[in-house]
Amino acid sequence: MRTLWFRRAGSAAMISWTLAVVCSFAAAAETPSVDKPNLVVIFTDDLGYGDLGCYGSPTIRTPNLDRMAAEGLRFTDFYSAAEVCTPSRAALLTGRYPIRSGMCGNRRVLFPNSEGGLPPSEITIAEALKPLGYASAHIGKWHLGIHPGARPLDQGFDRSFGLPYSNDMDGRADLPRGASGSADPPRDGWNVPLLRDGEVVERPADQTTLTRRYTEEAVGLIRQWKDRPFFLYFAHTFPHVPLFASAEFKGKSPAGIYGDTVEEIDWSVGQVLDALRREGIAERTLVFFTSDNGPWLVMGDQGGSAGPFREGKGSTWEGGMRVPGIAWMPGRIRPGVTSELANAMDLFPTALRLAGGALPDSVAIDGVDLSPLLFEGKSLPQRPFFYYRGDQLFAARLGQWKAHFRTQPGYGPPKAEEHEPPMLFHLGRDPSEKRDVAAAHPEVIVQIRQAVAEHQSGVVPGKPQLK
Amino acid sequence: MRTLWFRRAGSAAMISWTLAVVCSFAAAAETPSVDKPNLVVIFTDDLGYGDLGCYGSPTIRTPNLDRMAAEGLRFTDFYSAAEVCTPSRAALLTGRYPIRSGMCGNRRVLFPNSEGGLPPSEITIAEALKPLGYASAHIGKWHLGIHPGARPLDQGFDRSFGLPYSNDMDGRADLPRGASGSADPPRDGWNVPLLRDGEVVERPADQTTLTRRYTEEAVGLIRQWKDRPFFLYFAHTFPHVPLFASAEFKGKSPAGIYGDTVEEIDWSVGQVLDALRREGIAERTLVFFTSDNGPWLVMGDQGGSAGPFREGKGSTWEGGMRVPGIAWMPGRIRPGVTSELANAMDLFPTALRLAGGALPDSVAIDGVDLSPLLFEGKSLPQRPFFYYRGDQLFAARLGQWKAHFRTQPGYGPPKAEEHEPPMLFHLGRDPSEKRDVAAAHPEVIVQIRQAVAEHQSGVVPGKPQLK
Repeated sequence: MRTLWFRRAGSAAMISWTLAVVCSFAAAAETPSVDKPNLVVIFTDDLGYGDLGCYGSPTIRTPNLDRMAAEGLRFTDFYSAAEVCTPSRAALLTGRYPIRSGMCGNRRVLFPNSEGGLPPSEITIAEALKPLGYASAHIGKWHLGIHPGARPLDQGFDRSFGLPYSNDMDGRADLPRGASGSADPPRDGWNVPLLRDGEVVERPADQTTLTRRYTEEAVGLIRQWKDRPFFLYFAHTFPHVPLFASAEFKGKSPAGIYGDTVEEIDWSVGQVLDALRREGIAERTLVFFTSDNGPWLVMGDQGGSAGPFREGKGSTWEGGMRVPGIAWMPGRIRPGVTSELANAMDLFPTALRLAGGALPDSVAIDGVDLSPLLFEGKSLPQRPFFYYRGDQLFAARLGQWKAHFRTQPGYGPPKAEEHEPPMLFHLGRDPSEKRDVAAAHPEVIVQIRQAVAEHQSGVVPGKPQLK
Repeated sequence: MRTLWFRRAGSAAMISWTLAVVCSFAAAAETPSVDKPNLVVIFTDDLGYGDLGCYGSPTIRTPNLDRMAAEGLRFTDFYSAAEVCTPSRAALLTGRYPIRSGMCGNRRVLFPNSEGGLPPSEITIAEALKPLGYASAHIGKWHLGIHPGARPLDQGFDRSFGLPYSNDMDGRADLPRGASGSADPPRDGWNVPLLRDGEVVERPADQTTLTRRYTEEAVGLIRQWKDRPFFLYFAHTFPHVPLFASAEFKGKSPAGIYGDTVEEIDWSVGQVLDALRREGIAERTLVFFTSDNGPWLVMGDQGGSAGPFREGKGSTWEGGMRVPGIAWMPGRIRPGVTSELANAMDLFPTALRLAGGALPDSVAIDGVDLSPLLFEGKSLPQRPFFYYRGDQLFAARLGQWKAHFRTQPGYGPPKAEEHEPPMLFHLGRDPSEKRDVAAAHPEVIVQIRQAVAEHQSGVVPGKPQLK
């Protein structure tokens, strides 16, 4: 067991800046000396913290992800950069809080009739890696805009195969209420197109085959690109509703149709890792698995689990943004579990560091390079994390402390509550955010306010895209 | 991924008897051909399902148990045989529901002034293994009686080192209310003796050193007994309240003092597994880690987590009896996660099978041999599980279905509620037992009633010991 402790010089003793680093299983691992390793990001839609075996699910069977975690580094404190889809994806691909790109706002996400999209001025991982010799592919859900300038091929990807937005959009006019959340949704209920490189190849997309076809696409690209550096952004459509699984998985999970779709995604992960091993490039490919936000909790029997956390998708309570995070690169990453605070925006600088490139000068990047943690078991720089809902900063985390300035349930009618002083929770002793201890720790709130003020003074909001 | 499906011939389609078996990481493992392998049972006190990293704890750091799980077989559906301490321990050591031994009743557990104890007629794992050439040691908490006939050396153990009962018994008369559940309990608050082979060696026991001293004892015995078959029953005192950790662990866990004690137990597990490896006997030692019941939930900031399950210690809701279960025997057990239904009573027949002995004719055994599952990845026999509270059967599980005939909160004033028809939950789709679906599945209730009737017709209650 290796544990490092960092304390911030001069900080008040009440804030524990202690960050426990990798509790490592294995004796040693090397910093990757591989030239231009590949990056595969597997990104699920609405998967909760508690929905994988390796995160404590008692019902959903995920042997491939459990094995990936056992061979890799599993994060306990990994965050999506937003509580819903569009801003979360924009942040992952750009390394920036969505407030900066304008990919957030009152409509929460992009809809088929939205005019906005990821601005061409934003630099995605694919664009940053292109001059370094990388090929890039987008597979799965996009949801960052359908108009010129915002589409995958406009944003640095050489290939694209998947849906332009969520699988519950473009619903048939006569769909009964609640159809998207049902256990057996109609296969022809949504007119979502399947696109290849921007062209419609099927409409409506047969959603029962999506996970399989995405996987075949990924495996094919791995085979094709095995001799050159590549970035694969594999953004699953599921377990976002409506839930569809292939015949091989439907009705098989004890956890119902939600479990079926997650178990099929688990199968897919196994196929991708197997392909990397088979092509002999596993040891020079960093695979990162995570989710775009917490689970959608309004589904009764058919939904996911936020594990021990409060609330789910759409909320800035932990359940809305604390998500699974697993890094895998056999022989390079020390197997273990880490409680380091990290988030999806860190993938941008990590990708650039691996590829040997420099961060762009023209934009502010919020993520940090994870490679010292991944490959050397070192601690990351001390930093706060900010929980946005749309363009508003709702909460902030500093060490184990989290202050809520505003709260709002994940779904339902908007009824944001303001908190002055903010609510304060200790996420170590109270991960479920049940016991507000603000009155006992005013000095912590002072420090969190300072961190928020510092952050906000450096943020220039982008032109709103989700109007 | 290996998945086997079993269906009960002739059963109504509504009851899914499907039991998913080992989702295995590794390609192959062999049935142990080792002659008389050792057995080490590590048994925690009041540890919850959600309190280990490998069961999804976001805050408690358990790298040694996480590694044990990654190298071994982790159970998602493992149960303690009772919801409180004394009956749970009696059941583990005898392989029998406590109703049979009389180790249950209105007082729930044994107290220092109780007259009862584990009857001499009961056969413990230690007694069953003795004629097969095994040495046995008890380390840690006993809680099965302090009078002649019931004590460790009377019940087949050659060695014994630990406490006779819970660490919150024998409290000082002037202890303030709530002292045992406090974050910083008084070190001299409880007059519990530390015994070696029945003799008091320290009183009050210095509870801050117990985990370390238990561990040294275990490591010493492993060294001493490495050339002969042995059974080590290592029953930790913690995380039962009052919570004490050694100086090395106190104040270190982000999860507070509860986390400190669990992290020290995790360290202890690492020491035991290291000792087995160092002595060269890891491959001929089955180590099984589990807990005596769910977490005590009335502690506010200082308590454990039942993970996704409802209620905790003292309750027959899942949180009271679904506990961690990890089997480890490197090179013999296929690494993976299993959703097979198993429980602590299975350790008795498993131990006998490993040792090459037969089950005793004189007593009914409720457990089943786990070795086909552990060493060959085979399914276990289909069987119901019964949740007792004291001498009353409160609930029963059949496949994924669980019926509650009676319910009662874990702690607080007794107020059992009777349910007729019983409440019914599908643990696969609704692990938190929130949605009673009895009205929709009367045929399931019929089958569960049949299973209960069959079970009860074969139970002869033992003379009550906990009066």
